[in-house]
Amino acid sequence: VTGPSLTEADLSALIAAIPTPAKEAEREAWARLDSLTKPPRSLGLLEELAARLATLQGTDRPAVARKAIVLMAGDHGVTAEGVSPYPSEVTAQMVANFVAGGAAINQLAKHAGASLVLVDVGVASDLPVHAGVIHARVAPGTANMAVGPAMTRAQALEAIGVGIDTVADLVADGVVLVGTGEMGIGNSTAAAAVVSALTGVDPAGVVGPGTGLDDAGVRHKAAVISRALAVNSPDATDALDVLAKVGGLEIAGLAGVVIGAASRGVPVVSDGYISGAATLAALRLAPAAAPWVFASHRSSEPGHRVVLEALGLRPVLELDMRLGEGTGAALAMELLDAACAMMSGMSTFEEAGVSGKES
Amino acid sequence: VTGPSLTEADLSALIAAIPTPAKEAEREAWARLDSLTKPPRSLGLLEELAARLATLQGTDRPAVARKAIVLMAGDHGVTAEGVSPYPSEVTAQMVANFVAGGAAINQLAKHAGASLVLVDVGVASDLPVHAGVIHARVAPGTANMAVGPAMTRAQALEAIGVGIDTVADLVADGVVLVGTGEMGIGNSTAAAAVVSALTGVDPAGVVGPGTGLDDAGVRHKAAVISRALAVNSPDATDALDVLAKVGGLEIAGLAGVVIGAASRGVPVVSDGYISGAATLAALRLAPAAAPWVFASHRSSEPGHRVVLEALGLRPVLELDMRLGEGTGAALAMELLDAACAMMSGMSTFEEAGVSGKES
Repeated sequence: VTGPSLTEADLSALIAAIPTPAKEAEREAWARLDSLTKPPRSLGLLEELAARLATLQGTDRPAVARKAIVLMAGDHGVTAEGVSPYPSEVTAQMVANFVAGGAAINQLAKHAGASLVLVDVGVASDLPVHAGVIHARVAPGTANMAVGPAMTRAQALEAIGVGIDTVADLVADGVVLVGTGEMGIGNSTAAAAVVSALTGVDPAGVVGPGTGLDDAGVRHKAAVISRALAVNSPDATDALDVLAKVGGLEIAGLAGVVIGAASRGVPVVSDGYISGAATLAALRLAPAAAPWVFASHRSSEPGHRVVLEALGLRPVLELDMRLGEGTGAALAMELLDAACAMMSGMSTFEEAGVSGKES
Repeated sequence: VTGPSLTEADLSALIAAIPTPAKEAEREAWARLDSLTKPPRSLGLLEELAARLATLQGTDRPAVARKAIVLMAGDHGVTAEGVSPYPSEVTAQMVANFVAGGAAINQLAKHAGASLVLVDVGVASDLPVHAGVIHARVAPGTANMAVGPAMTRAQALEAIGVGIDTVADLVADGVVLVGTGEMGIGNSTAAAAVVSALTGVDPAGVVGPGTGLDDAGVRHKAAVISRALAVNSPDATDALDVLAKVGGLEIAGLAGVVIGAASRGVPVVSDGYISGAATLAALRLAPAAAPWVFASHRSSEPGHRVVLEALGLRPVLELDMRLGEGTGAALAMELLDAACAMMSGMSTFEEAGVSGKES
């Protein structure tokens, strides 16, 4: 039982059911990689990605044919504090742009061979009913966290349930690799608040320009976050409390995507800073999900470094990107796919009749 | 007139004909990129790659549909000095593996949608006549540079001509993006010698484990290179002299690929360390080719950092790879292709009806 009726007990049960990858599978993965016609480990991170996927899939011929990026959209009451150069209406306008195929993620998901799954988990503006959007709005945006909690605990839980349900449907459809993505004007402020609350790093150390603030804007954003943390006193040991008080509907939804994917034994590729905040919250709720998470890229948003260090993950790409939407996840999926093609398609030294190292 | 009969005068004429990308095209490229539905420059390096390709192609809708990786194979007399843990025969065995489709580059080129063009420009062992290999052997491997010049100046020029001719045929077939790749046991020693000679950096600063030397092996390799440089005294101001005396047939061939691509107005993606040495030599011969070169990745071979700094290029990827074959070029081609898809397929703010920044 998930979705709108997800209880904390349900969530705990789901988390307890997250499978542990088999050590034996990892040994077999490296045995195959080291037998292929190349100097051992000469493909560096590409081999590590292949070995991880092989281990997670329990095979020495990994494949990630069916891929999907879950893009959660939500609005943020904290935009009332002037934390973004763009108006909130842009969230809904961009969802329409995603439906029409005109955004960066449309091009990059298509290029990666990934389907794009759009979820309205909390957009504030009217949005026409599109066949291309999963309408699962928990609330029309969050409340302004600078004056009170962004959400109730029940709303945060419901948003997590939306993510869990979305992934469940995708996995039932044969998807074997899930990426995260988001759209929400103001959400780099919420992400920074979540990261600050969960890591203890001062807001000034986790804020950045987002979609394009100047230095004064960034300082203002840090001050707003400090106020939100003071007003709400989120409990750092309770990630659900943090998500509810200073998070966002799409951030909670993506935390659900991470937990949902891991619980079904499906690897998940975390996008940039906002997705990273969601992944961090997910792994605080569900530490056992960690092996199932790949970091796609290191965003140029400064706080993403803090997130990746907290997650202990090395990103696949460093392209100074800061768009979100799942664009980094899409690009990283291409490398994960290439890693599988390499591992599954290459010949061994023995098969190819190639001499090994001289003793 | 190129190929076996390429003269130094022919090469100079070809170099003089390298086109200069239009500044106006660059301005138009950024104007389009900044009009697309994303915060300006929020896709970081991906936008820079798109802008460069757009500028080089003279369009604001760049595309790199037909791609090819030119893999040049050659052997090295310097292997007599014990600079590689693998026997020279592996070069020919790996060419057979490339023909059979079992190597890493087969999988990664296919994944990138690039054709793989195999060229025997100097393999020492017998190689069956394969329809899948361009047989353009200038010599059966180089001579041992530790005791005398690796090649004559005429041989180096001939190998460059092979690269130029190979690219000419590909461009005639509609290829619009060329990648470099190589196979040659011992060629990380030759590459390090070329880089040391051209940059003045001590051999110890540009050598590395190659396919898998230990520390003592790396020190021995540096000593062999020092000897080769002392014996041959290559002229750092004459890259053809450097290529001939301490280079390799496949390294000279790839220098020809770079010059040939630039002369026809086709961008070229340089692979790892050995390809980087070839690209460095090419740009010393033909500085005007620089705008046409993309650096694919930063190899874990330490000297590649020296090469990239000398070239002034930021690599697209950093995956700790050190295999060569064109594997880094293939992966980077996917990102270049994605950059084009982004730039050519996205909608503008105006087209999508999305609000811009608030004033």
